[in-house]
Formats: sequence, structure tokens, C-alpha cells
Amino acid sequence: MAYELYYWPGIEGRGEFVRLALEAAGAPYREVAREPKGMGAMMAVMDDESLVHPPFAPPFLKDGDVIIAQTANILAYLGPRLGLEPKDEAAAFFTRQLALTIADFVVEAHDTHHPVGVGLYYEDQKAEAARRAKEFREERIDKFLGYFERVLAINPDGPDHLVGKALTYADLGLFQVIAGLRYAFPNTMKAREGQWPKAIALHDRVAALPRIAAYIASPRRLPFNESGIFRHYPELDEA
Amino acid sequence: MAYELYYWPGIEGRGEFVRLALEAAGAPYREVAREPKGMGAMMAVMDDESLVHPPFAPPFLKDGDVIIAQTANILAYLGPRLGLEPKDEAAAFFTRQLALTIADFVVEAHDTHHPVGVGLYYEDQKAEAARRAKEFREERIDKFLGYFERVLAINPDGPDHLVGKALTYADLGLFQVIAGLRYAFPNTMKAREGQWPKAIALHDRVAALPRIAAYIASPRRLPFNESGIFRHYPELDEA
Repeated sequence: MAYELYYWPGIEGRGEFVRLALEAAGAPYREVAREPKGMGAMMAVMDDESLVHPPFAPPFLKDGDVIIAQTANILAYLGPRLGLEPKDEAAAFFTRQLALTIADFVVEAHDTHHPVGVGLYYEDQKAEAARRAKEFREERIDKFLGYFERVLAINPDGPDHLVGKALTYADLGLFQVIAGLRYAFPNTMKAREGQWPKAIALHDRVAALPRIAAYIASPRRLPFNESGIFRHYPELDEA
Repeated sequence: MAYELYYWPGIEGRGEFVRLALEAAGAPYREVAREPKGMGAMMAVMDDESLVHPPFAPPFLKDGDVIIAQTANILAYLGPRLGLEPKDEAAAFFTRQLALTIADFVVEAHDTHHPVGVGLYYEDQKAEAARRAKEFREERIDKFLGYFERVLAINPDGPDHLVGKALTYADLGLFQVIAGLRYAFPNTMKAREGQWPKAIALHDRVAALPRIAAYIASPRRLPFNESGIFRHYPELDEA
């Protein structure tokens, strides 16, 4: 049976980390909220008061009767099923740790344009966003990408993957974050990405994987835009 | 062998979610950074370039040779070992989802006093904090606590626990968040906590568990303070 992914239509957002895992594995899945009447179907699950394991927010995955929410948790569920997580227990927990660290990075990338709160428009918090984005560009990007660079450099199986010698959802997540940063902060990334050669090389290798390349070329891959997590507001980038 | 917990001394912070699990289970553990020369020992692990699975940030747990980082990941590691996670797979993933949702709630509680960034003092972002705290009080607290109230109400095993019929780290996490909100936003909680009677009752039951009550009465339980996640700045609370 095909997996059912539920996420807001129109943005990559957190759903993209799940899509990339499903696409990389060639797993059959439906993207429910992008089908006709799909938003109604998603809201019906969200509002279903009879669910014992309700999601707090999209994305969530249905696998038969099982509903799994929280991006990193969905990846931990799919990992062993799709062959995207090592079997060794310590390596599996490290892969999950990396997925959670990527999730933290994503929160901070989002907060550059919404520091005051999700309930307000960007236009209502531009001054605060400018301050937050400056710290993000100057401190946080290197803190995170420098960490992933270090993990790649120390991997005993070589710098092709973050964990072990095979593709994991952590690699896919790092690909997505770098793609998003290049979209949102093109000047910053152009000036600085030479600092993280192994992370950038990983991005490029993932983009060239046949299934991922086919996915990116398909209409299933949504473009980055100014409704998503990674937004290109030139005033938030370096000059 | 005793678990070794590494976290910043002087604050409850994210380490508290791990401490509560260890304390509730009566598990032997050392709190390394609070021992003499402990900060040096923690920084030595952080800076150890030979680690294949380095932590990104505290808290992290050492269990023999295994290092586990990210709060929710540490809880997922400890859960089966301490009897604080259901054995049923779907229920286990739901417990982890709840721990991640609590982690998101904690990020938002933190950002009320640091909306512009972690690198600045609160005093340098008071205006932004006032705006963010207002949204948090008026929208986000009920969004999260209302969700946990719903999960308690629908539990087929009754409203004593979030998942199943036994204590999990999700229950401990909800206890800690409610304790923190009462500290940081006493007026808001006094006015509103009647909206979430099952969540508040869970908090009170957890506080009365013999091991937790003994822990709270001990010097191992640090007080809330204005260096932690939950800070009491009266100007950020309701009048």
C-alpha cells in the first residue's frame, strides 16, 4: 500500500524532508493535500477527535492505520523501511540526531523572517527580521554547516555520507538545507560556501542521484517561494 | 555502569527532561558538568575532533562508549531501557512525537525572551520580546496545552497518562513545561490553566510521584532562573 503524506500544498516546507526520503527510495506515495479536495481530507484528519494518536501539525504520514507526525520522527519510522538508516543501533541514533539538528537549523532559518511570531506577516516584523537574519548569517550558518563538515570529515567510511557508507535521510536533509540557504541567502552562500567543501560536495552528489535528479525535474518538486521556510528577501541577505 | 549526563550547570534547561527520566526510573547517573572540573570535561567531549558521533550541543548522554545527543533522541534511547516508553511500535512512535512537540513548545517559550537571537542579551531585545511574548501567551500556549489536553482526553486507557496506562517521558515532559510556564507566566497561567484540567492534573500527579517528589526536594533539582529557558520577566506576563 502506498504511503500517504499530508502537508500544506504549495510549499516545500518540512514536508520536503519526507518527500526526499520517499523519492530517493523510489517508494510509492500519495501527496494527499495536493490532490483534488485534498486540503479537506487533511483537515479532516487534523480535526478527527476520535484519533488516539493525533498529529499536532503537518507533516504527517499515514501507513495503513498508523499515523506518524513530526518530521524527524517520520524519518525515523521510514528509515529502516526504506533502507535510509544504518542497522547498527548507535549509528541509527546518530542519524536521528543529525535529522533533529537539521530540524533545529530549519527553525532558525524560518525565524530569520518571522522572529516575532508566526501569526504576523513578514511585513509587520521587517526590522526584527533584519536583526535576526544578521545573526543567522554571521554566526549560525557556520555553526551548523561547520558541524556537518566536521561530521563528514571524520566519517571512517569517508566523506561521501554523514553516517556510514550509504545514503541516509540525514544526507538528504543536508542537501535540502543547503539548497534552501542558496535560495534564501545567495550572496552569503556565494561568499562563504567554500568553507564547507565536503557539505557542498554532498549536496551536489545528492542532486545528481538518478531518482533525486528525476524528482527535481518533475512537477512533484515545488519551487522555493516566499511562503515557505527558506525565503529570498534580498534585504535579509548580505549586500 | 552509571549513565553520564552532560549539560550546562546552573540551569534546568533541556537537560531537565533527561534528568526527570533518569530520576523517575531511579537510574544511577552522574551529572558530569556539575562535578569539580566538570565543565572542562564537558568541553573536552565537545571539542574532541576524534569523535565519529559528536554532539552538536548539550545535553548529551554517555552510556559506555555510546554518545547520544538531542533531548528527544536521548529520551528515545533511554525510554525502553528505563521502562518509560510503550513496547507497541505505534505507541512508541507517538510517545516520541509528543516529546518532539514538547521540544517545539520549549523553543517557543525560549524565544519569548530571545526573539532576535541567542547571541544578544534579553536587555537588547526587550521590545521584540514583548511582541513575541504576547503572541505566545495569547495563541501558542493554548495551541500546545489544548493539544495535550485532547490527547489525555482521548487516551483509551484513561487520562492519567498521555500514552497507554503507564508513565512515559512524555508525561514527565508535560509536567516540566507546565512547571516552567507557571514560573515564567504566573498571571497568564493563573487566569487560564482551568482550561486544561487534565494536563494540570497530570502535572500534579507527576510532582507527587515518590521519586520525583524526592528529586524536587533535593539539591539535584535546580531552581528556575533567568538564565534558563523559562524566565520570569514580569513585563512579558499578563498584567
